[in-house]
Amino acid sequence: MRIVVLAGGIGGARFLRGLQQASPDADITVIGNTGDDIHLFGLKVCPDLDTVMYTLGGGINEEQGWGRTDETFHLKEELAAYGVGPEWFGLGDRDFATHIVRTQMLSAGFPLSAVTEALCDRWKPGVRLIPMSDDRVETHVAVTLPDSGERKVIHFQEYWVRLRASVPAEAVVPVGAEQAKPAPGVLEAIAEADVILFPPSNPVVSVGTILAVPGIREAIAEAGVPVVGLSPIVGDAPVRGMADKVLAAVGVESTAAAVAEHYGSGLLDGWLVDTVDASAVERVEAAGIRCRAVPLMMSDLDAAARMAVEALTLAEEVRGA
Amino acid sequence: MRIVVLAGGIGGARFLRGLQQASPDADITVIGNTGDDIHLFGLKVCPDLDTVMYTLGGGINEEQGWGRTDETFHLKEELAAYGVGPEWFGLGDRDFATHIVRTQMLSAGFPLSAVTEALCDRWKPGVRLIPMSDDRVETHVAVTLPDSGERKVIHFQEYWVRLRASVPAEAVVPVGAEQAKPAPGVLEAIAEADVILFPPSNPVVSVGTILAVPGIREAIAEAGVPVVGLSPIVGDAPVRGMADKVLAAVGVESTAAAVAEHYGSGLLDGWLVDTVDASAVERVEAAGIRCRAVPLMMSDLDAAARMAVEALTLAEEVRGA
Repeated sequence: MRIVVLAGGIGGARFLRGLQQASPDADITVIGNTGDDIHLFGLKVCPDLDTVMYTLGGGINEEQGWGRTDETFHLKEELAAYGVGPEWFGLGDRDFATHIVRTQMLSAGFPLSAVTEALCDRWKPGVRLIPMSDDRVETHVAVTLPDSGERKVIHFQEYWVRLRASVPAEAVVPVGAEQAKPAPGVLEAIAEADVILFPPSNPVVSVGTILAVPGIREAIAEAGVPVVGLSPIVGDAPVRGMADKVLAAVGVESTAAAVAEHYGSGLLDGWLVDTVDASAVERVEAAGIRCRAVPLMMSDLDAAARMAVEALTLAEEVRGA
Repeated sequence: MRIVVLAGGIGGARFLRGLQQASPDADITVIGNTGDDIHLFGLKVCPDLDTVMYTLGGGINEEQGWGRTDETFHLKEELAAYGVGPEWFGLGDRDFATHIVRTQMLSAGFPLSAVTEALCDRWKPGVRLIPMSDDRVETHVAVTLPDSGERKVIHFQEYWVRLRASVPAEAVVPVGAEQAKPAPGVLEAIAEADVILFPPSNPVVSVGTILAVPGIREAIAEAGVPVVGLSPIVGDAPVRGMADKVLAAVGVESTAAAVAEHYGSGLLDGWLVDTVDASAVERVEAAGIRCRAVPLMMSDLDAAARMAVEALTLAEEVRGA
């Protein structure tokens, strides 16, 4: 079975690990979000790609969900001693190596997709990981700074990591997305997929950014195979992260049903909500999307695997309908 | 008193620390060798400038004489895990920060001299450290590989660090030196100096490379102030390093007297040899260079300070003559 998964960072990566356990023989292609990529210290950092790669490759810091295990931060300490920031982005010594190799390969002329493949040669994540695009896309967020009242557009990472989404996101713009082309292999993987899954990743800044690359949304809608998503919102609050902050910016309420409607029945065939949101099933189905209420808390690998089974089961239901 | 010192790496840095102790009120300008600079992992590495900066700024690894104290090598381990080399150049996690800051500033358009000044803002070495040139100069070495018999031109660092100078250097070429201009401040510092010193640095690949930048040798010769050097060769062998290997490449025997003659009386007014080489004094003086035999082993800071005192004393003798 060929499965395509659109993934952001932690949520996507943990779901993928569950999917691998649930469906060990599946041929999985992951289309990774690159909208949260950022240039730091002259290096190209791809947080979501790396979180997927490290998580599936066994190198992730399990507790924090991003960055490397057994990590030290000496380089970062030294940069701070030089007065070189930003200090709010936690790059560890081991993690730096990934960004150095990536930047060196990009400088040598390799596209990000080829670089990602080369990095995965080491990590062997067991999936094919493709960035959504080889072109630069950077999600920016419009905010009003509380102290000065100044309206400012800042990089998503500054909003997410430095400000911890503490002020409302007034607009979320994937800068460069309109001009971006899907990376080689993205449209082909979608066209050849048997199932397409949206893990419980952020619907705006993760899955939404991938869908903003012209051609990807259309390819998924026209693939003619079941497209099933899992709600990242449980009981009207994000399972983790701050998805509610960016949902408001796109005028979507922070509920499992509203997120399904935001994707829409033109894209989505099936939607899983948590059992606490069982009352949302009727509303989602009324929107033309088959819906089931199942446990959606990825408390451990087995829980993630059960979620993957539920998603694949719903996909088969959709296919048989 | 304004003192200009032409410095390579370890020998130059340790002599400078002695000079600071011997002459705490002196205004010291160091013209640093950049011929051993190398690009590694997309980063600009300046080993000699950093050795001077770290040594005088209290950040050096005292035992090995280069690199940072309290260092870890996690980033390097990860690069090796990615299969990205070279592995023979020992960049530590803390040291990497210097190269990242430098590379970022160079990419932003700052010349190396301005970057070096910015790095020294942190380290406060107590001297003004200027690279010999803002232009790229890279020392290359022609060798015949023992296994294949292949004649090859390799970067100095590959010769020095990877091969440990284990094959004869057939030629040593400071590539780019002919087109290089002295960095801003270099010729001015020489013109305003009261004394110019050559520490016991490598006469070919350290001091020699600095002198290969058009204008520097001439400025020193015409400065009209005492120019005094200290022999890096003691008892027909280098005090440290492998100076004999590269002396042979320029046709100079590995003796204290031969090195003085190599610099020549047109450049050098005074020369210190070690007491074990007292018999060389006559030969050096016959070449028109005032010479004294004094202890030249920099076993500790006090020994280095005594050498600095001897050099300054000889400079005053030259001036009074």
